[in-house]
Amino acid sequence: MTKSEVKLLGAWPSPFVMRARIALNIKSVSYEFLEETFQPKSPLLLDSNPVYKKVPVLINQDKPICESLIIVQYVDDVWSSGPSILPSEPYDRAIARFWATYLDDKWYPTLRSVRGAKGEDDRKKLITEVGEGLTLLEDALNKTSRGKDFFGGDQIGYLDIAFGCFLGWLRVTESLTGVKLLDQVKTPCLVKWAERFCAHGAVKDVMPQTEKLVEFAKMLMAKMAASTPN
Amino acid sequence: MTKSEVKLLGAWPSPFVMRARIALNIKSVSYEFLEETFQPKSPLLLDSNPVYKKVPVLINQDKPICESLIIVQYVDDVWSSGPSILPSEPYDRAIARFWATYLDDKWYPTLRSVRGAKGEDDRKKLITEVGEGLTLLEDALNKTSRGKDFFGGDQIGYLDIAFGCFLGWLRVTESLTGVKLLDQVKTPCLVKWAERFCAHGAVKDVMPQTEKLVEFAKMLMAKMAASTPN
Repeated sequence: MTKSEVKLLGAWPSPFVMRARIALNIKSVSYEFLEETFQPKSPLLLDSNPVYKKVPVLINQDKPICESLIIVQYVDDVWSSGPSILPSEPYDRAIARFWATYLDDKWYPTLRSVRGAKGEDDRKKLITEVGEGLTLLEDALNKTSRGKDFFGGDQIGYLDIAFGCFLGWLRVTESLTGVKLLDQVKTPCLVKWAERFCAHGAVKDVMPQTEKLVEFAKMLMAKMAASTPN
Repeated sequence: MTKSEVKLLGAWPSPFVMRARIALNIKSVSYEFLEETFQPKSPLLLDSNPVYKKVPVLINQDKPICESLIIVQYVDDVWSSGPSILPSEPYDRAIARFWATYLDDKWYPTLRSVRGAKGEDDRKKLITEVGEGLTLLEDALNKTSRGKDFFGGDQIGYLDIAFGCFLGWLRVTESLTGVKLLDQVKTPCLVKWAERFCAHGAVKDVMPQTEKLVEFAKMLMAKMAASTPN
């Protein structure tokens, strides 16, 4: 039995892990997926990511690389066995990085906080903010795709991966709140983009089913409620 | 009068603006520095960075680029008129990006919060966390410099810029708290690195004097105290 050269420490519900998987799929890299249960965290995870102790961690030739967007850039740098993930033009790369950072620093934390909203007013405010972010992203899609299928043009690229990995959790939020967030009227281009993204060969096998994610989210919320003092 | 092709919207006390200036200096790029007063924010800033409305913004050929680490990467991509800023090896690039992200997401927010600490216990806890971060960075310096002068080797690079821009505010915190954070005993290599970094040709003219920064910090703290209800 040969030891796999490339390993990915991950967990199926994590959007950040999905980023690494999609990047590896785009480059047709074979890898061993090591599912973390976090009960407790594996010695390999603790050893590979001592600062954050979080997935994903990509291990290539025994060297660990942490943080999903850094992994995607690393995969793009190391393997030329598939289309480029980062745009070729410096300005386009900067714009893709800007929106990817916006998603991680601002948009996704807001989306995630909808589940833990304190009362109806707070929930509505957060949902409005998520919607405003989607309007910005609809505009970014129109500008960066230049009439093509993806943020990256003809192929899915860095910003497609950065944003697309959140589609599962966006649908969970829609399901739990009963509010349509990716909306045909307000964000028609994103709606079509999301369909194309999820059907893409590098994505469809690693995108979790919404029902399974909803069950997982309910379990998380029940755990959180049980641990919150009355 | 010819219109300058490269403009930087900035503010002298901002460590993030300093990153862009150092990157431009490394590449010997002439640029027009537009000091923002924020009273009110300039139309050019609001127009160039509508999402965050923050400095730095680099404007090259009328195209704005926002977020300091993205600007540094963009400058490295566009201008070959100086040494490379990002390491040449993909793994080294990933490691430099990891620590730069750690600095922005974790270490610097902790350093900044020392100024607003609620009582002595909170202040001590935060100072301990800052010190623990410096120990991690001392270790990273020893690993990535491979016995050379900088994180980037012989030349200052991405991680030198990402970390070095915080040295002024680290000294402000030392001055305000009376606690030596960059310490000869605990972080001897960082102490020497900081001296070399501040004396570097691309840095020395854009690194603010500590006394001037301390005055600025005291003014900020006084403003904050005046606006906090009793």
